[in-house]
Amino acid sequence: MVGRCDTLPVANLIDVTDPGDERLADFRDLSRADRRPDRPGGRGLVIAEGVVVARRLLASPYPVRALLGVRRRFDELAEDLAGLEVPAYVTSAEVMAEVVGFHLNRGVLAAADRAPMPGAAELADRSRCLAVLEGVGDHENLGAMFRNAAALGVEGILLGAGCADPLYRRSVRVSMGHVLRLPFAELRPWPGGLDLLREHGFRVVALTPRADSVPLRDARLDHGRVALLLGSEGPGLTEGAIAAADGAVRIPMAEGVDSLNVATAAAIAFHAAARP
Amino acid sequence: MVGRCDTLPVANLIDVTDPGDERLADFRDLSRADRRPDRPGGRGLVIAEGVVVARRLLASPYPVRALLGVRRRFDELAEDLAGLEVPAYVTSAEVMAEVVGFHLNRGVLAAADRAPMPGAAELADRSRCLAVLEGVGDHENLGAMFRNAAALGVEGILLGAGCADPLYRRSVRVSMGHVLRLPFAELRPWPGGLDLLREHGFRVVALTPRADSVPLRDARLDHGRVALLLGSEGPGLTEGAIAAADGAVRIPMAEGVDSLNVATAAAIAFHAAARP
Repeated sequence: MVGRCDTLPVANLIDVTDPGDERLADFRDLSRADRRPDRPGGRGLVIAEGVVVARRLLASPYPVRALLGVRRRFDELAEDLAGLEVPAYVTSAEVMAEVVGFHLNRGVLAAADRAPMPGAAELADRSRCLAVLEGVGDHENLGAMFRNAAALGVEGILLGAGCADPLYRRSVRVSMGHVLRLPFAELRPWPGGLDLLREHGFRVVALTPRADSVPLRDARLDHGRVALLLGSEGPGLTEGAIAAADGAVRIPMAEGVDSLNVATAAAIAFHAAARP
Repeated sequence: MVGRCDTLPVANLIDVTDPGDERLADFRDLSRADRRPDRPGGRGLVIAEGVVVARRLLASPYPVRALLGVRRRFDELAEDLAGLEVPAYVTSAEVMAEVVGFHLNRGVLAAADRAPMPGAAELADRSRCLAVLEGVGDHENLGAMFRNAAALGVEGILLGAGCADPLYRRSVRVSMGHVLRLPFAELRPWPGGLDLLREHGFRVVALTPRADSVPLRDARLDHGRVALLLGSEGPGLTEGAIAAADGAVRIPMAEGVDSLNVATAAAIAFHAAARP
């Protein structure tokens, strides 16, 4: 970390004053659903917002294409950028807002291409504790689950049917960039693909409020290979997914209380099963 | 629950079309900090937003003064309102937005007066597991902690120094109305007031990432009287508070990962200590 931008040479800092500059194409109209580069139909770019998340993107396997930000944020990123051969466009907060389409408090963006990820079999090979998600279509819940999984020692996430894209900008942000560090893969077919986990010696344990499930604290999930199967807020896991699991656990809840937020419930289960 | 508004008589439904109507004073300018009825300097009203939270307010000890909403929401609340002697002002979404100062998706508001709460000693008398908060000044984190505490069986919350007002509108909303159900009290002096808990047979256990704290899962918090001492996101507990506790526990975390959200960390500790 350096305090001033002139204490380290930062490669490729390029001043930009024209919001129409074609070199800023990766960052244009981030809030317009039909043109966003990070959406299906867009260019599938990975967009990181803010110093902390941009730093995680720079340290990730995703090939960074460019950065856009105000000078103060590049000062903070000086060490991370040193020697990096990508353009870093320096501009004002006003020009930045005009380019991206909204006012960005975090002051810096980084754009990267997607990259091939490990397959489900490879993740199963090298992990003791995985999370398997079904129907988590909310980008913020998905991002929060990645953050909690990374913090609590879950080694990877498998995406069953109906999950949102973890690399969508809002998931990246809410995860604090941990979607860029924690490996994930699609698991197909669904839920038949759970067999792959069993073949690798995993117990597949569904988290569900059903009365016949075992209280989490009695389930002894802290040994052996465990895959925690988690559904979405509201509908929860499908019958098919629960039937395809080896067992079911629940978090005992007070009567008359809405269920916990899904990422909070997941964190409780991660703490019970994973070891950082 | 009824499907249509004409199947049950709802007391005191009053149609209103003028946003300047003086009877709507409880709901005026909710977003203007200097005039908000739910802020210090305002009238200290408790404001509930949406059907679920309004229902919790109606069932709470807080004396409801009035409701304002669109007809469809009053239909949903028909059973809760039956026989209630308070005015329920029916209007359009547009008039409602003009009165409160922003567009309200939830379509109904309820306002209540504050009411005396049990003291810390009374809460300690009747509880096995309490949460004690220090410096939780963020209204959303505070609300989320109430929601998690209510769900997981914590019986009350004591507010140490530096906590926000749980009855502030945004805390009420994020808690899903559980600040209206779960008793809370101020604990003073701080942190000397923790002695009161010890006198009632509580172990006061601080949640802190310090290396000399015991991993949560080894701490056996699920028996005897336990008070969980929790700090804010970022600075965490003060040295004085940790020193005033009987012991310290931590949630083991992966290196290089930001700490969990404070309400998420609290939920993990609540699950370990409380019983719904």
